[in-house]
Amino acid sequence: MTTAQALEKLKSYEQADFALGHAEGLMFYDGATVAPKGSAEVRAATLAELSRMSYELTTSPETVEMLETLKADSASLDPVTARKVELLYRDYDRTNKIPKDEYIAYSRLMSQSDAVWHEAKEKSDFAMFEPYLQQMFDTNKRIALYIEPGKHPYDTLLDGYERGLTRASCDSFFTSLRQKLVPLIRKVCENAHRVDDAPLQRIFPVEKQRAFSEYVMDLIGIDKNHCILGETEHPFTTDFSKYDVRITTHYHEDMVASSLYSVIHEGGHALYELHTGDELQFSVLGGGASMAMHESQSRFYENIIGRSRGFCGLIFPWLKREFAPLLDDVDDDRFYRMINKSTPSLIRTEADELTYCLHVMIRYELEKRLFEGELRAKDLPGEWNRMYKEYLGVDVPDDRHGVLQDSHWADGNIGYFPSYAIGSAYGAQYKREMQKEFDFDAAVAQGDIKRISDWLEQKIWRHGRMMDPGDLFASVCGKFDPECYVGYLTDKYSEVYSL
Amino acid sequence: MTTAQALEKLKSYEQADFALGHAEGLMFYDGATVAPKGSAEVRAATLAELSRMSYELTTSPETVEMLETLKADSASLDPVTARKVELLYRDYDRTNKIPKDEYIAYSRLMSQSDAVWHEAKEKSDFAMFEPYLQQMFDTNKRIALYIEPGKHPYDTLLDGYERGLTRASCDSFFTSLRQKLVPLIRKVCENAHRVDDAPLQRIFPVEKQRAFSEYVMDLIGIDKNHCILGETEHPFTTDFSKYDVRITTHYHEDMVASSLYSVIHEGGHALYELHTGDELQFSVLGGGASMAMHESQSRFYENIIGRSRGFCGLIFPWLKREFAPLLDDVDDDRFYRMINKSTPSLIRTEADELTYCLHVMIRYELEKRLFEGELRAKDLPGEWNRMYKEYLGVDVPDDRHGVLQDSHWADGNIGYFPSYAIGSAYGAQYKREMQKEFDFDAAVAQGDIKRISDWLEQKIWRHGRMMDPGDLFASVCGKFDPECYVGYLTDKYSEVYSL
Repeated sequence: MTTAQALEKLKSYEQADFALGHAEGLMFYDGATVAPKGSAEVRAATLAELSRMSYELTTSPETVEMLETLKADSASLDPVTARKVELLYRDYDRTNKIPKDEYIAYSRLMSQSDAVWHEAKEKSDFAMFEPYLQQMFDTNKRIALYIEPGKHPYDTLLDGYERGLTRASCDSFFTSLRQKLVPLIRKVCENAHRVDDAPLQRIFPVEKQRAFSEYVMDLIGIDKNHCILGETEHPFTTDFSKYDVRITTHYHEDMVASSLYSVIHEGGHALYELHTGDELQFSVLGGGASMAMHESQSRFYENIIGRSRGFCGLIFPWLKREFAPLLDDVDDDRFYRMINKSTPSLIRTEADELTYCLHVMIRYELEKRLFEGELRAKDLPGEWNRMYKEYLGVDVPDDRHGVLQDSHWADGNIGYFPSYAIGSAYGAQYKREMQKEFDFDAAVAQGDIKRISDWLEQKIWRHGRMMDPGDLFASVCGKFDPECYVGYLTDKYSEVYSL
Repeated sequence: MTTAQALEKLKSYEQADFALGHAEGLMFYDGATVAPKGSAEVRAATLAELSRMSYELTTSPETVEMLETLKADSASLDPVTARKVELLYRDYDRTNKIPKDEYIAYSRLMSQSDAVWHEAKEKSDFAMFEPYLQQMFDTNKRIALYIEPGKHPYDTLLDGYERGLTRASCDSFFTSLRQKLVPLIRKVCENAHRVDDAPLQRIFPVEKQRAFSEYVMDLIGIDKNHCILGETEHPFTTDFSKYDVRITTHYHEDMVASSLYSVIHEGGHALYELHTGDELQFSVLGGGASMAMHESQSRFYENIIGRSRGFCGLIFPWLKREFAPLLDDVDDDRFYRMINKSTPSLIRTEADELTYCLHVMIRYELEKRLFEGELRAKDLPGEWNRMYKEYLGVDVPDDRHGVLQDSHWADGNIGYFPSYAIGSAYGAQYKREMQKEFDFDAAVAQGDIKRISDWLEQKIWRHGRMMDPGDLFASVCGKFDPECYVGYLTDKYSEVYSL
């Protein structure tokens, strides 16, 4: 195969690969949004077939020859093509090490496990889910050992979501957070009475909340021609290229802030996708550099922008006017502080900015101990509840509000959770960098979110997966410094709670 | 390849074929329901890729060897497998005659043409759509000639939707309808004042219409665990096996009957799919025997059940109670007659039962003349409007309410329309046959729709594509007799209008 032939082959490979990924993604999206309840098995069968086709495409001798030809001649390739070849080869190498039957069986397991988890959560019945969960951990372990036999399987999984991430770096990261945040959280709790957010629990009609979502999407600059908002039990973002991005939210009549911050969080993911470079579309380079880079965008919009005094000042007049007279007794300052009330709680996705990382840490610790053989799936509810008591001081009333709350383990996303915390910490450094160039808080207060989005687009979004996430972060912010995040949280909450 | 090997191969072929069809179907469904507006091009690219994969699967040497092995040994196969082989070979033979590039290009054309049609319809701008329409007719003609070079291409297309159907049989069918129905319609028009349906144009809140749809789905026995109702501009049904059926409707505040009869019509399609035999699922034998057989179910539920005096008596109390006081001045008899008011009109899908077939006939005549070279796409608006005036006596105000109203031509469904009229006529014969076994009108009036559905399930639904449609119909009703339908309409409308 000549280089020219290989380049042709790369084109057709990318078309097929994109189409299969698009189809798989749409199956998931459909399953989570509108599909009839009784259709899960059929979808699982189709997903298994599509995953078989994907496997065969990725590992076919023709693909391997194409990749090897291009790799050998990589000096002659333009940077985009060279990077594609690098990542595709890496993907091929991982996939090829997994036996085909295992690969397809895993697709089936994911579908089954997700379906069982949904039911188990509804019924708060961990026992029903436990065998699937154990199988999910076992399968992930086997797969990790196929990929890197000489390495600790949990490190392999962490690295799969965030290249370069290890237990050692996670441990050090979470330790530094824990040391500073646990005492801060304690102080905030002692002064809990200083912030009363009761008005946020009033009844805000869902129909008007929907209109509010549309307003907020416009405010943060989401192009609705290429991004829609749906409704699901668990908010998420999915994308089939920058031209088709889907975010979802969930409305609670008595928790107006819940959907608001879901929309901004998923909106941050969406903005990343919507602004990836055109030349990277429909290829392995589209989409974000990594899960942590992705979460760093969503958490940045949700918290560092969305829960700032400036942003609260932007949205409060709309809320006050459209939901009148519900918030007539609340002023700007109180609204900001209500939005930032911190209370150790049960549900990660509803957690405030300060306690959020502890939720993540608990999941990380449990995953690690599972892989180190200290725990089995059956031990998780007990350990979960114990750790929530220890770190957050809350009693878990049932598994629905405990170990069954997240879909990640059911869907095989093991090793993913640390991304949320690392991404959150990245955000504080983005803000510090931006402030060297412009007045961040003033831009938010003036509603000039575009100033911020343009900065992120230039530095991060448009580059897609052109760089490994660690390199990309370093190119923007230099060394990763969790203390910056701790400092940001300490300053913010000291002010909110007048500590 | 031994027969045993070929049977194994058939299994994996069916899995792959089903998965690709499922993915393609879901792409269409997503595009019609929730996808962002700006995503059409991406979807078109994926659909073209999936159609390439489908083509390659259908025509691969391995598939052909499998089919030929099984064909040669068909005496040893069970009836289901033998029928599968027969139909798969027929499909292969058709597909294989179409050059691959033409096949894939056609998939792209369908996506583009559909997107342009949507916009053209919105703007009532036929000129914008015309080149795509001409290309659609040209491509269908070329494809028909690839498949059967010696046959008139329009006959090939008709036969594709309804095996055995020809221009000759359509001509004779439509002639007999026209001869009897045109004078009947004239008489009804002269007595138009005898039925006043003004109350149906009052404002019926959409939220309550949604609840009404749910009630009606229950009434006709739709299993909601496997069938959902969505909302789209144009109602339709799609299915991915009997375990996942989707119907859609469109609500108009001032046309409560519009959504009602969309739900029952699409519900009829859904019932057919939901009751296909389990052993036929995920194969070429799933789904209906043909388009006319499918439309015969939907039109039967919509009209012969849904617009009967008995059914009106079932739903009227719900409407009267839930929409009170909107229908307080209407009694049972008036409600029935309102529902059956016949007025020559512009839009096929909103047409009453009596004039409906003339809408179809006009489309058939236009298609036929296009294929006979008498007309080109550019002539269609003029001819359309002329024929609507001639047969229905109405003036078409713009192309949006005329030639641009249906999606069929935009989507390449040329030769499909006659199915609606033939299916409508089939229904009258079903009723005649049922009445030999039980009191049809009494069953409807008592709400025992299950009695009727069971009959159809036994005679038609469960058989899927085990028989060709003509044979299936003959096995249930004997010879096709359009006079039965004409008689049914004459009796019904003579009574409604006291002629």
